[in-house]
Amino acid sequence: MTQFEKAKKGILSPALKKVAGDESVAPEKLAELVAAGLVVIPFNPAHAPARPAGIGRGLRTKVNVNLGTSRDFPLLADELRKVRISLACGADALMDLSTGGNLVRIRKAILARTPIPLGTVPIYQAAVKTLDQRRSIVDMTEEDLFEAVEAQAREGVDFMTVHSGLTLKAIDRLKKQGRVADVVSRGGAFLLAWMLHNGKENPFYARFDRLLAIARRHDVTLSLGDGLRPGSVLDATDRPQIEELLTLGELVDLARAAGVQVMVEGPGHVPLDQVEMNMRLEKRVCHGAPFYVLGPLVTDIAPGYDHIVSAIGGAVAAAAGADFLCYVTPAEHLGLPTDDDVREGLIASKIAAHAADIVKGVPGALLRDRELARARKRLDWETQRRLAIDPVKFAAVRKRRRSKSRACSMCGEFCAMRIVGEFLGAKGTADGGCA
Amino acid sequence: MTQFEKAKKGILSPALKKVAGDESVAPEKLAELVAAGLVVIPFNPAHAPARPAGIGRGLRTKVNVNLGTSRDFPLLADELRKVRISLACGADALMDLSTGGNLVRIRKAILARTPIPLGTVPIYQAAVKTLDQRRSIVDMTEEDLFEAVEAQAREGVDFMTVHSGLTLKAIDRLKKQGRVADVVSRGGAFLLAWMLHNGKENPFYARFDRLLAIARRHDVTLSLGDGLRPGSVLDATDRPQIEELLTLGELVDLARAAGVQVMVEGPGHVPLDQVEMNMRLEKRVCHGAPFYVLGPLVTDIAPGYDHIVSAIGGAVAAAAGADFLCYVTPAEHLGLPTDDDVREGLIASKIAAHAADIVKGVPGALLRDRELARARKRLDWETQRRLAIDPVKFAAVRKRRRSKSRACSMCGEFCAMRIVGEFLGAKGTADGGCA
Repeated sequence: MTQFEKAKKGILSPALKKVAGDESVAPEKLAELVAAGLVVIPFNPAHAPARPAGIGRGLRTKVNVNLGTSRDFPLLADELRKVRISLACGADALMDLSTGGNLVRIRKAILARTPIPLGTVPIYQAAVKTLDQRRSIVDMTEEDLFEAVEAQAREGVDFMTVHSGLTLKAIDRLKKQGRVADVVSRGGAFLLAWMLHNGKENPFYARFDRLLAIARRHDVTLSLGDGLRPGSVLDATDRPQIEELLTLGELVDLARAAGVQVMVEGPGHVPLDQVEMNMRLEKRVCHGAPFYVLGPLVTDIAPGYDHIVSAIGGAVAAAAGADFLCYVTPAEHLGLPTDDDVREGLIASKIAAHAADIVKGVPGALLRDRELARARKRLDWETQRRLAIDPVKFAAVRKRRRSKSRACSMCGEFCAMRIVGEFLGAKGTADGGCA
Repeated sequence: MTQFEKAKKGILSPALKKVAGDESVAPEKLAELVAAGLVVIPFNPAHAPARPAGIGRGLRTKVNVNLGTSRDFPLLADELRKVRISLACGADALMDLSTGGNLVRIRKAILARTPIPLGTVPIYQAAVKTLDQRRSIVDMTEEDLFEAVEAQAREGVDFMTVHSGLTLKAIDRLKKQGRVADVVSRGGAFLLAWMLHNGKENPFYARFDRLLAIARRHDVTLSLGDGLRPGSVLDATDRPQIEELLTLGELVDLARAAGVQVMVEGPGHVPLDQVEMNMRLEKRVCHGAPFYVLGPLVTDIAPGYDHIVSAIGGAVAAAAGADFLCYVTPAEHLGLPTDDDVREGLIASKIAAHAADIVKGVPGALLRDRELARARKRLDWETQRRLAIDPVKFAAVRKRRRSKSRACSMCGEFCAMRIVGEFLGAKGTADGGCA
């Protein structure tokens, strides 16, 4: 039985109990949310991550790190270093998006070292295989696609992106729309090319039943990809994007009916004033399915800083209901991320998630802010460091700009905290109901 | 006559015409906004910045860089380097917040090199003077305060922060409130200490008329500081903050009546769901006075990354009406910023401003996004670099992760843009009304 089916029967699985404990939610309450499809717990028994994550309503906003080799940088060792960094900096999930080197070996190595849910985009493996055989991507067979899905499910992949909503009808709407950036999803591009070349419907749509059977057998959580997500703020919330979303909503219903855990992926490049609307629309159209967003990126003009662009969009998105943020690194749009890019991207995304959790009513989200603010007032640098989202960076910045005073080197003896503490008394005003 | 008085008489000053040209607004229309107090043009004739900035309704969101020495890092040369970086990276205004070394010499050197509006917080100079005389900050005289204001006005400072709204009544409300972080504004802390020690009202409030006389004589734009801005998200939008805002609103009326240009400073640490409300409240209470915000910082837990925390808050704030963003650097709460901190902080703030301008209806704001997205689709890397918010970083990241393919090293031959271009035709779908 899948986590979904167990929850429906009121069975409290060990993974569910672990998540409930981490989130300070009653297991029975969490089981209701899972049974309603409002929360997913990606947990393939063949992997059985020791630190499973619950994704969805009422829970802490989760953050995913994308990593994996490319044709230009195919080394496994590089990606295993990124796994370690991601775990050390608090990633909730990883996706292995490798396209270079021996994909099976790389994935198995990453799976073995990853105690959190691992996701993939199986079509990449099918595409790489055809290319390695010196054929074109459009020569992939339907069997290639489903074989990749099945093999990865057997290996233990916990969640998989499948672009099942990219239909011939959606491509028609794309053509009628006239976009600035057309298609920027890799998986979406492979499928679009395949469909146009072969004049056939998307196999992940036409044979969605086959996907469901595999997903159910291995309890793989399906992450319904948005192959037509906008790749420019000028393309946001346009007809092809919404056409695909409508189809994804229908597929959510089918997945739930089949006992398969399912979440939905979302934009993409979206101007700030359309972010909240996109979150509400997904929740309505997809019956509250957990929403997994990439960014959103609120401008196109900042390559080199797209982690910041995405933190802006991600915070607003999560505050408006997004459940799962896919990090974006400073290298996005420019190249495969380095170790530093992974760290910077992950922390930016965690900041966005936390800023949202404060206002989403996630239990206990504000506690850390309060403790850090109090430590700041009493110039207790060690407690500040310990509570900081990145204690390593905290220590490095502080060391670089050391002060001769007890305060910091910006204000020194002019520290407002110090002066006010002296004149309002050491405790200041802070005992008014915040204890 | 001040810019404000000229605009009221329908006189189109050279500074106003320059701003109108930069903003693609008719000079007559801009003069109406200035005359109504909805836009300020900080422009002290003794400085006469070659690149003046208009701040307020309908104009591009502006970004300010704080720099200046501290007691720990008192070197002028360091700060002049930051001036150059700020100008190269597109700062709209600078504030010299020096508290270390020879303040007059430093300020004059910065003024001489700054073709954009320069601001200060004159109370710092008065405080440093008393400390240099081995007296306590509470021993400052009222004359010390006004002398500093007058001297800096004569030197050419274009805008000045004065914490005129920090009254005895506001301190009473602060005590009744019981805050986590009390007071985090340096100028606010100096005044609070002085008021409590001397049992007297804030001279910048009690003798606001004297401030107005100086400001009018030199056409200094007053920036009414928020000495009680929240220093923790737990203190946001509390009674002392709003008490001070009400007073600032009254002072805006007085300044306008005296022909003095005036803007209002705002929070501070504010949870994401209170940011928009704070913007609307200021606009209502202060009769549309331009709003100059520090951050807002949407969480307390990310020292080392507060430029990202502020970019989130700043984007949402500007989209909801904030006119002027004060940058925050990665070193905030930890030490005086380095050159790199200045650059990272400024770019983060510019991203926030631009993301807001896209949705604020600032004329032409989307053009750059469209051109960059189009260049991205045709894999035109040189045009992308040229249009990027930081071409230097763009080139550095790309060089670090070079690809053997025409695309980038993340996707290489799997580039969605390339594949889709091939199957939809080179132009793709993009001629649908976006030309």
